[in-house]
Amino acid sequence: MEPDGITVWFTGLSGAGKSTIATELAKILRWQGYKVEVLDGDILRKSLTRDLGYSRADRDKNILRIGFVANLLSRNGVIVLVSVLSPYRDIREEVGREIGNFIEVYVKAPLEVCQERDVKGLYKRTRAGEIRGFTGIDDPYELPLQPQVEFLTNRETVTESVAKVMDKLEVFWASPALSSAQL
Amino acid sequence: MEPDGITVWFTGLSGAGKSTIATELAKILRWQGYKVEVLDGDILRKSLTRDLGYSRADRDKNILRIGFVANLLSRNGVIVLVSVLSPYRDIREEVGREIGNFIEVYVKAPLEVCQERDVKGLYKRTRAGEIRGFTGIDDPYELPLQPQVEFLTNRETVTESVAKVMDKLEVFWASPALSSAQL
Repeated sequence: MEPDGITVWFTGLSGAGKSTIATELAKILRWQGYKVEVLDGDILRKSLTRDLGYSRADRDKNILRIGFVANLLSRNGVIVLVSVLSPYRDIREEVGREIGNFIEVYVKAPLEVCQERDVKGLYKRTRAGEIRGFTGIDDPYELPLQPQVEFLTNRETVTESVAKVMDKLEVFWASPALSSAQL
Repeated sequence: MEPDGITVWFTGLSGAGKSTIATELAKILRWQGYKVEVLDGDILRKSLTRDLGYSRADRDKNILRIGFVANLLSRNGVIVLVSVLSPYRDIREEVGREIGNFIEVYVKAPLEVCQERDVKGLYKRTRAGEIRGFTGIDDPYELPLQPQVEFLTNRETVTESVAKVMDKLEVFWASPALSSAQL
């Protein structure tokens, strides 16, 4: 029997490790034969959300649009791994309620660590004044209050983080009747 | 074994019968146990494409966005029934190539018949000058050149139209290696 679809939503600062972990998790789940889609906020900004900027309103539209697609996929049995900064709590929670089968994962790393990693060079550009409204610097990030999973990516390996989500997915599939809030 | 997903794209004038046929087809396919999603252009304009208008550029964005979602779903085994006016040939063909498993269905009815039906009252509002750029009146509709299925909804019943698509789907599932252009 095919397992229930679910959306795993990775939120956290730029550079915290969301996409890295989502990509690794996707590989493992695909090896296991599951249907998986990764919806990566940065990549989607070249297609589905190309028209959107980084104002509060546009960030909310971004989340609603990605959430809409994640819902369609996960209700058809797909495991959807969403990797998107998603700084605002309300809209994350709204999307989670809408989807139902939803796990919020807080990918956490101290801002200093994210700034040091700076894979995309965005923190540097922000310091240089080239970017304004950058989350964590001069735009807010609202912490998840009760994420079902939390990583400290400066203290644990990618494999350890991936294993935490796998454990949660197994609990979900063992008792899909549990609301995701109870996981 | 699960059948391959596919996108069935219903194009045609407002009032031609796209949504009616897509909805009936969805019922039958669901009874048969398939995973089905209907992506209805009018309904999506309340969510996924809420920000878009009816300029050529916005109509194209509309099709690209819906096509993007249809692709994600159909590559995960879903039968996606897209009901959207989609007046421009190039963009329909672009989306069809991108998706691959794609059947273009031309839902055809003479303009006079669509105007008489006028389920949504849009032709009346166009005649009254309240709407401009209405497809078929003062905005173009580019006919599909080689649709895989064509209905004449003023000469055949909904059941007959639905049966035509079912036949085409059965040919596709019997030989998914055939490109959809050969169907």
